[in-house]
Amino acid sequence: MKRLLPGQTILLPSPVLIIGTYGPDGKPNIMNAAWGGIASSRPPCISVSLREATLTHQNIKRSQAFTMNVPSEKYVTEADFAGMSSGRDTDKFAVTGLTAEKSSLVDAPIVSEFPYALECSLIRQVDLGSHTMFIGQILGIVADEDMLGPIRLPDIEKVRPMLWGSLGSMAYYGVGNRLGDAFSVGSSLRQS
Amino acid sequence: MKRLLPGQTILLPSPVLIIGTYGPDGKPNIMNAAWGGIASSRPPCISVSLREATLTHQNIKRSQAFTMNVPSEKYVTEADFAGMSSGRDTDKFAVTGLTAEKSSLVDAPIVSEFPYALECSLIRQVDLGSHTMFIGQILGIVADEDMLGPIRLPDIEKVRPMLWGSLGSMAYYGVGNRLGDAFSVGSSLRQS
Repeated sequence: MKRLLPGQTILLPSPVLIIGTYGPDGKPNIMNAAWGGIASSRPPCISVSLREATLTHQNIKRSQAFTMNVPSEKYVTEADFAGMSSGRDTDKFAVTGLTAEKSSLVDAPIVSEFPYALECSLIRQVDLGSHTMFIGQILGIVADEDMLGPIRLPDIEKVRPMLWGSLGSMAYYGVGNRLGDAFSVGSSLRQS
Repeated sequence: MKRLLPGQTILLPSPVLIIGTYGPDGKPNIMNAAWGGIASSRPPCISVSLREATLTHQNIKRSQAFTMNVPSEKYVTEADFAGMSSGRDTDKFAVTGLTAEKSSLVDAPIVSEFPYALECSLIRQVDLGSHTMFIGQILGIVADEDMLGPIRLPDIEKVRPMLWGSLGSMAYYGVGNRLGDAFSVGSSLRQS
């Protein structure tokens, strides 16, 4: 039985993106955002959509840069706190005990404790009603050596990222079982 | 120990998006894409980035519409097949045995067997090198009654969506344990 529902922002899964920026005073800040994803392969780009009221929106416009830090599930408390508070009145690095480290490629801080971060330079901004979509070119990745898999890239089974269950559950989830290889498991349907 | 890697499209997790469109001949098609995410809350918008060479790219430009179908993990084979073949020479609905149902809101097909679909009308197109980002307004959601949770929205624990492990693993994964409530678990760090 199908139900028709009003248009709503329900994408499963949605990522947990911890955006790192510097404030006008040089103070590092982090924000938790779920509205974003990869935007292009060449150049490698990622997008994140933010409300204009946020400090991070203002910071990205000024510095033209941000980092996209991927937290592992053990940092669910810190990640959630980053989405519950504003950098305008809270030093989120101090409260969470996380460490800000300057990116060598862009004017934005990296969260040292997280498995890896994308270093992004703003290349486009798209205004869409409540949110501005910031598109950043991924200039580099800073990753913990022990989060890399066999081909020396961040490996989901080591990173153990979390995901957001969206409006239907309002909760964070971990990654479950490996279901099959991409560009492979579908081969069984190939017509001979 | 931190490693510096070249800029690459590694976002964990990335979603598994099955894009539904009609071809110029009215033939329904599906494609598997991982580059996308929610783009705005009001109006509710979602983005997906596609290479110009794909049939889906051409179909969206003509029909100005698409559906974003979220498969449950039991459809990993069908979803992968949708990413391994082209609608130009393959009737993917016929091969997978999935059923195309016309959206009542937009000129695009819904995959009946999947838990829910977003019905999207194209509102913006952003060209970014290898990929075009299509931004669609989510006009409605078609969902299976038994995929809805307590607040009558698609529930991640019922939908059981899959996610893509990106370049580091090239595999699909299921959803794991519930880690904590959003806007809640972080409260323990609030300063009193």
